[in-house]
Parts: sequence; structure tokens; C-alpha cells
Amino acid sequence: MPWLAPVDLLGTVAGILTTASFVPQVIKTLRSGQTRDISLAMWLSFCLGVTLWLVYGIMLGAWPIIAANVPTLGLAGTILVVKLRNMNKE
Amino acid sequence: MPWLAPVDLLGTVAGILTTASFVPQVIKTLRSGQTRDISLAMWLSFCLGVTLWLVYGIMLGAWPIIAANVPTLGLAGTILVVKLRNMNKE
Repeated sequence: MPWLAPVDLLGTVAGILTTASFVPQVIKTLRSGQTRDISLAMWLSFCLGVTLWLVYGIMLGAWPIIAANVPTLGLAGTILVVKLRNMNKE
Repeated sequence: MPWLAPVDLLGTVAGILTTASFVPQVIKTLRSGQTRDISLAMWLSFCLGVTLWLVYGIMLGAWPIIAANVPTLGLAGTILVVKLRNMNKE
């Protein structure tokens, strides 16, 4: 079993928390379909930024950054899609 | 002038995008005062996770991670505070 450095463990916990944080928002958004209080500019910029963090993690070979940003992109992308679909009725 | 490695430049742009993304959400939330569509669980977990990313960046000596997470914590913390204040009326 490979040795897990304390810094990697910390990055893993950090990644689990920030990534998992989007799950309740995705559930809330998909259930209610309501995105009025959610900022389009935030989610556009955030999804683009997370894509670049992913490339940064790959370049550094820092797997906690990679592992955290792949699911974050999927979850944040889901919220962005619902917001975009709601744009004409808000 | 210190040489900026391409990976650091990428991390800087990524950090600017993900951190700046919270600015329009903070403006929207402070202006409207409305947080009904915003998930409390998301912002609690996110703020805790960002705090750990900050420690991770300090331990790695990765300044783009540090520089991105300090203002993110301030901005996300602002949204969390407004959400918490609104809890009794939502």
C-alpha cells in the first residue's frame, strides 16, 4: 500500500469538502428548479476556472487537485446548465 | 523581476477565475438579500474546505493556491453569513 503523505491527506480532505459541497446545491437546484438567487456570472467564471485548476493539477502532478476538480466541474456544470435554461424566465 | 513558470501563470489565471467568480454572487446576494435558492450545506462545507486548501497550499509552498483561497474564503464567508442570517425567515 503506498504511503500517503500528510500533505496529500490534507489535500484529499480539502478536496472532498469543497467538491462534496456542491452536491447539496445540485440536489436543491434540481429539486426546486429555482436559480433566481444564483449568479450566472459566478457559475460561468467558476466552471472555466475549475477547468484551468484541473490542467494546473495535471501539470504539477498533484493528484488531490486533479481528483477534486473533475467531479467539481461536473457538479458546477450541472448548476450552470439549469441556470442557463432558466435565464429566459427569470 | 522573478521568472514566472508557465504552471504558476496557469495557476494564477485559474485562481483569479475561481476567486473572482464569487464577486458577482456576493454582489447579487448583498443587493437582493435573497438566499432562498442557495444551499446552506454547500456554503458551510465549501468554507471549511477552502480553509483546508489554504493550509494545503501553505504546506506545499504553492503560492497560487494560497493567493486564490484567502479572498475566496472572505467572499464565500460573506455569502454564508447572509444565508445564516436569513435562515429563520426562509
